[in-house]
Amino acid sequence: MDQTSYDLIVIGGGPGGYEAAKIASNRGLKTAIVSNTKLGGRATFGSLLPSKIWLNAANHYRRMSEASSHALKVEGFSFDIQGLKEDIKRKSTAYSDQITQILKDLKVDIYHGNGMITGEHTVEVSDDEVKETFQLEAKYIIVATGSMPRFLPDIKPNKNRILAPKIAPLLPHIPESVIIVGGGVTGMEYAYVFAQLGARVTVLHNKRHILPEMDAEIADYLENVYVEKYDMAFHKGLKVRSIVQEGDRVIATLESGETFTADYGFIGIGRVADDGFYDKSAIDLTWKDNGGLRVNSYMHTGIAGIYAIGDVTGIPMMANKAILQAKVAVRHIVKDVDYPERYHFISAVYCYPPVAQIGSTKKDGHCDIVEKPYRCLLRSQINGEPLGLLKLKIDPDTDLVKGVSGIGPHIYDILAPIQLAMEHHIPYDELITTHFANPSFSELVSLEVSEIKE
Amino acid sequence: MDQTSYDLIVIGGGPGGYEAAKIASNRGLKTAIVSNTKLGGRATFGSLLPSKIWLNAANHYRRMSEASSHALKVEGFSFDIQGLKEDIKRKSTAYSDQITQILKDLKVDIYHGNGMITGEHTVEVSDDEVKETFQLEAKYIIVATGSMPRFLPDIKPNKNRILAPKIAPLLPHIPESVIIVGGGVTGMEYAYVFAQLGARVTVLHNKRHILPEMDAEIADYLENVYVEKYDMAFHKGLKVRSIVQEGDRVIATLESGETFTADYGFIGIGRVADDGFYDKSAIDLTWKDNGGLRVNSYMHTGIAGIYAIGDVTGIPMMANKAILQAKVAVRHIVKDVDYPERYHFISAVYCYPPVAQIGSTKKDGHCDIVEKPYRCLLRSQINGEPLGLLKLKIDPDTDLVKGVSGIGPHIYDILAPIQLAMEHHIPYDELITTHFANPSFSELVSLEVSEIKE
Repeated sequence: MDQTSYDLIVIGGGPGGYEAAKIASNRGLKTAIVSNTKLGGRATFGSLLPSKIWLNAANHYRRMSEASSHALKVEGFSFDIQGLKEDIKRKSTAYSDQITQILKDLKVDIYHGNGMITGEHTVEVSDDEVKETFQLEAKYIIVATGSMPRFLPDIKPNKNRILAPKIAPLLPHIPESVIIVGGGVTGMEYAYVFAQLGARVTVLHNKRHILPEMDAEIADYLENVYVEKYDMAFHKGLKVRSIVQEGDRVIATLESGETFTADYGFIGIGRVADDGFYDKSAIDLTWKDNGGLRVNSYMHTGIAGIYAIGDVTGIPMMANKAILQAKVAVRHIVKDVDYPERYHFISAVYCYPPVAQIGSTKKDGHCDIVEKPYRCLLRSQINGEPLGLLKLKIDPDTDLVKGVSGIGPHIYDILAPIQLAMEHHIPYDELITTHFANPSFSELVSLEVSEIKE
Repeated sequence: MDQTSYDLIVIGGGPGGYEAAKIASNRGLKTAIVSNTKLGGRATFGSLLPSKIWLNAANHYRRMSEASSHALKVEGFSFDIQGLKEDIKRKSTAYSDQITQILKDLKVDIYHGNGMITGEHTVEVSDDEVKETFQLEAKYIIVATGSMPRFLPDIKPNKNRILAPKIAPLLPHIPESVIIVGGGVTGMEYAYVFAQLGARVTVLHNKRHILPEMDAEIADYLENVYVEKYDMAFHKGLKVRSIVQEGDRVIATLESGETFTADYGFIGIGRVADDGFYDKSAIDLTWKDNGGLRVNSYMHTGIAGIYAIGDVTGIPMMANKAILQAKVAVRHIVKDVDYPERYHFISAVYCYPPVAQIGSTKKDGHCDIVEKPYRCLLRSQINGEPLGLLKLKIDPDTDLVKGVSGIGPHIYDILAPIQLAMEHHIPYDELITTHFANPSFSELVSLEVSEIKE
């Protein structure tokens, strides 16, 4: 049947899949997208978007508590968890509706159901609504099935007081105390949310530094802010054996036998690629040791016209990396253009102060490290937000930025021009000679290093 | 005397002068700075910094009034004008102290008093404190005397109810109604402040569009927001003859005879270069017709080693332009490097939503205009801030960005990577292929244009 044959089928309706379908159709490919959720995917309904709405509420709550330093008097304020739940529902649905409409306008065919690759050019769709299974064909397939939270047999949510990222539906109020298992991105975002909204937070983490993928100095900076501002308790370099609920209490037990108790538990110990998108007897895809689907620098799996993008290709799992990879894959499909192989992307943690990084800032005996504190920034002084640090790794031979890490307000936006500079080999000296708006956050990039005094 | 001879003397202690002294000393020049204010200049004590603290307070007040859409309940809140006055004093002083300390650490000699160029290499300083006059010598001189608010004989502040930018000391409370004379940057920033804090605002403006240096569509966008949100009254394309105070009322009279009355008046009709820095009989500097000191693309005046940067070189008068020009001038002095002649800078208006622009976005029959609305941005949806528009002018032959204008949250930060792309001739297609953090404001830059639907 003609209508079931496509240039491109995208499997997965999250940020990467949506982007791939959009730009492919924009470039003239006859495109279909298969999604087992409403468009927007888990990112919109389970993880990314809900967490950012929690974070947004926590940020507003924080600003409210600092009102007196912004020439305002507040009589009283409180967090409205019911309002938050409605906010999540409304914004998730609105975003999903918006991107659905955009894809419809672009004539992308949208199939709701599980997409399963059964041959090099064949996708079988099990449609949830009409309860039928049918086959689609395509010259190219992009796998964008994303990831799911990772749990262990004795470390998993119980739909009561042991929670995982999708916490809102289960939480009747902000608990008095929470144990967070996992000091990675998700753990540190929710640690901020809980602490800012009034909970006593204890973090149990298996590594020496929180945010183990980030610069250790920046990670320690965040930990110090959490400790000083919220009296948060950190227990690191340990292994949690189990977390269980007994009555109204949650008990975490370490391998050492030590126990911690709190009203609630939250598990953020990573995510795993969703590999339920292909018939393993029909297609022989290769997986990396750490769990991601193996692809080349154009996101091609090596099999026929099958590409893979986003979380399914492994860590780090970031929506903007998925979107970037969607652009790389589609450009490779339509034009065979040589998009730079070693693309850069921003890893970000949207707590407060937020943390972001591109590449690595590890000292290697060759590169220089330049540090720029926010307190030298006029915008920070005006906003009364002096905390923060930007750290760049520069190759003295080429004057190129090799990596950057930072913590502070809007750090994920501050890194945008640096990302561009890294991508296009703009020397550091050129970067700081371009002066950005005053007073803005971006100005931190163009600050001359002489301002750095400890 | 040896200690009064310098490689470089900077006249003026504002943002441009401070930057010039800092980076010159950093590069080994024996440097002095002469300032007739505490370091930081009028920008820190009269115009830029105080206005941004007013704007910061207005922004917090606005967020407070929107608390219910961020899952918060607020019992009552009010603006504390006394708190604001203290905030301005505290932050201005802290910033001035910080940059003074940085220059001291860099061994820059700081002279407080009027600096007057009396010869090609001579600066006479009238020291305020010790009431004496003495001469300094330098190989190079950088003039960074800035600008002062412009007034007319019948349109000037009266230190009572007719105000100019330095308003805080004179204002006992937010007035019920204000007439703003001038629809430029200063007028539009304070229009937002007054309206958001509760005043009824009437704007009298002599041009057809507010913000006449900005893209007309973007300027109209801001006007519409002001009208819809604050019921602000705009009267444009007219000439104000006079503004006077009678008792507790302020009356503005147009050339047409029409009058407007309010509790307070605010005058923001531009700024004029401060030209009181040289002996006109000794040095023959050239002034442009529109009031700025004439300089070449390296900020050199054409006379001996005399350079000029910032507001004294004319419109547009922006602190970041002054800082950029400081970098250009000092680099020219120390290295004769060929810094790009046609540098770009961001003009910004820090109202809400803020407005920013680089170059011109005027249609010219050749270039394409690409528009990206904020409502397609996930960050805007999460923050509940759907208003805003980014507008780029692209040359279809080269795919280079020729100009950009925008309105919306953090637009001045969003423009940073675009500024870098313009400076370094990075094609638009490369700009959108680099994907910035998700969900961030910068992501608006990398959004594919297919999302644009009206």
